[in-house]
Amino acid sequence: MTYSLAIHGGAGTILRSQITQEDEVKYNHALHDALVAGNDVLIKGGNAVEAVAASVVSLENCPLFNAGKGSVFSNEWKHEMDASIMDGNNLQAGAVSMLHNVKNPVLLAKEIMQNSEHVYLCGEGAERYARQQGLSFEPDEYFFTHLRKEQLEEALRDNKIMLDHRTAKDRKFGTVGAVARDIHGNIAAATSTGGMTNKKFNRIGDSPIIGAGTYANNHTCAVSCTGHGEYFIRGVVAYDVSCLMEYKGMSLMQACEKVILEKQVKLGGEGGLIAVDNAGNLALIFNSEGMYRGYVTEKKDFKTDIYK
Amino acid sequence: MTYSLAIHGGAGTILRSQITQEDEVKYNHALHDALVAGNDVLIKGGNAVEAVAASVVSLENCPLFNAGKGSVFSNEWKHEMDASIMDGNNLQAGAVSMLHNVKNPVLLAKEIMQNSEHVYLCGEGAERYARQQGLSFEPDEYFFTHLRKEQLEEALRDNKIMLDHRTAKDRKFGTVGAVARDIHGNIAAATSTGGMTNKKFNRIGDSPIIGAGTYANNHTCAVSCTGHGEYFIRGVVAYDVSCLMEYKGMSLMQACEKVILEKQVKLGGEGGLIAVDNAGNLALIFNSEGMYRGYVTEKKDFKTDIYK
Repeated sequence: MTYSLAIHGGAGTILRSQITQEDEVKYNHALHDALVAGNDVLIKGGNAVEAVAASVVSLENCPLFNAGKGSVFSNEWKHEMDASIMDGNNLQAGAVSMLHNVKNPVLLAKEIMQNSEHVYLCGEGAERYARQQGLSFEPDEYFFTHLRKEQLEEALRDNKIMLDHRTAKDRKFGTVGAVARDIHGNIAAATSTGGMTNKKFNRIGDSPIIGAGTYANNHTCAVSCTGHGEYFIRGVVAYDVSCLMEYKGMSLMQACEKVILEKQVKLGGEGGLIAVDNAGNLALIFNSEGMYRGYVTEKKDFKTDIYK
Repeated sequence: MTYSLAIHGGAGTILRSQITQEDEVKYNHALHDALVAGNDVLIKGGNAVEAVAASVVSLENCPLFNAGKGSVFSNEWKHEMDASIMDGNNLQAGAVSMLHNVKNPVLLAKEIMQNSEHVYLCGEGAERYARQQGLSFEPDEYFFTHLRKEQLEEALRDNKIMLDHRTAKDRKFGTVGAVARDIHGNIAAATSTGGMTNKKFNRIGDSPIIGAGTYANNHTCAVSCTGHGEYFIRGVVAYDVSCLMEYKGMSLMQACEKVILEKQVKLGGEGGLIAVDNAGNLALIFNSEGMYRGYVTEKKDFKTDIYK
């Protein structure tokens, strides 16, 4: 049995012309590191859930991506994080929303999935559960980056709610995620995000929603999305890919293209997804200008990319 | 073109032996009133969204059901309410979680759907949006009922998290919901809940999750669920019914039976759903002992029921 792993670090208006060569190297390095983290699990025969968690933790710990350390600021200068994870082997799932100060939201989602009777916890209650279970917390300063501070200042000036905002013409959907198939034939998916710069009203996007931002089922596929959350929720994107495979007999690639390049485009939803099927085939599909992404299989063919 | 409307007031271990004749009359009256509220909209040519909102408001305002007034108490003696709504005509959706003191959570979900750029708002932020949009608030006393107080006291004594708990042997999934098809051929669904008695950690169930507790699409069906939320989230129940119709060519009844009587039973998920297809056919399906439910079509065939 073979293994495979794909990751993303968000999608949107990511153009070669806007990124310095130095930054490009940094992003590719960070994506590579996240692949190594998941690959280390899979190469030793570890399971898909542990692999996607390891890759997402690596991306959460990197300040370049909008998740964990490096999360964007809400309208109230807070870091409000969401995450979810699903195990395709038993359809178990865990999710968290409106989380503050938990170092790795994806590990809390995993804890909820594996050790609670619940699927989805939120805000203060989720933080209380995290403390009870001994998860790592960090002070506000840990999550702080100058880039995110500048982005909120700019968004406040323009009075705009921005999705990982850079420039007025930019739309970036800051999310990280991973999907994997292990050598035992199990598949899993995980997603994590810091949400939208200048977001108000405790808005929740698709990242913590099982079926929208994350889904995994050994009979079909595992999917992690990154995009304009409202459209991805309305399209129930991750589960739609699974249903097109299970009920329509589509291949993974056909299903992903149908959902992202046809259905989401028609609905108005910009973004993309990564997916793996139960045979280990990978799909990294997006309808935006770019998507930070990468994959590796047991051929050790580490590959990272940013642009179309 | 014909119209039709179905409602539910929760599912679970609802046995004739446990309900007095007096209570039975009260429940049937309340269900009838909720049908009348939606029917009043539909008979005048009103749209499906307004009809499901009217029926759910009627159920939220009735202290017999676990939603709005009459919501159960969380572990911290709070009423934490969730709701969602979806418009099958344009796939617009609105949802709220962890809401306090908003009189009708379903109307806030509708407001978010129709007048914000978001789909899903949560907690304090959602309440701030509700105040800004002029929705009605009520003090804690409004939501108080002696029955719910006794239920929390009993749950605290037994140290159990209970789903609309009555007796140790009881499992009730306190949720209300409505689905409708209007004379213009549009369909819609809405769901609202007070959650679980003695719930901790700000747990969220399927009720506010688009795709799990609520879904509507004019091309297929509108669905509102009531059941053990964790299993309904993992099964992406409402959207699964839609996918089985769209991708597998199943009828509404076939799809609902497949999801509730086969897939959810296999997964371990107790509960039920109400659904309407784009031709106005209705399905009211549950795998539990009972489900408070009712329907009406333009034949004015008002019908309410409780047991199997």
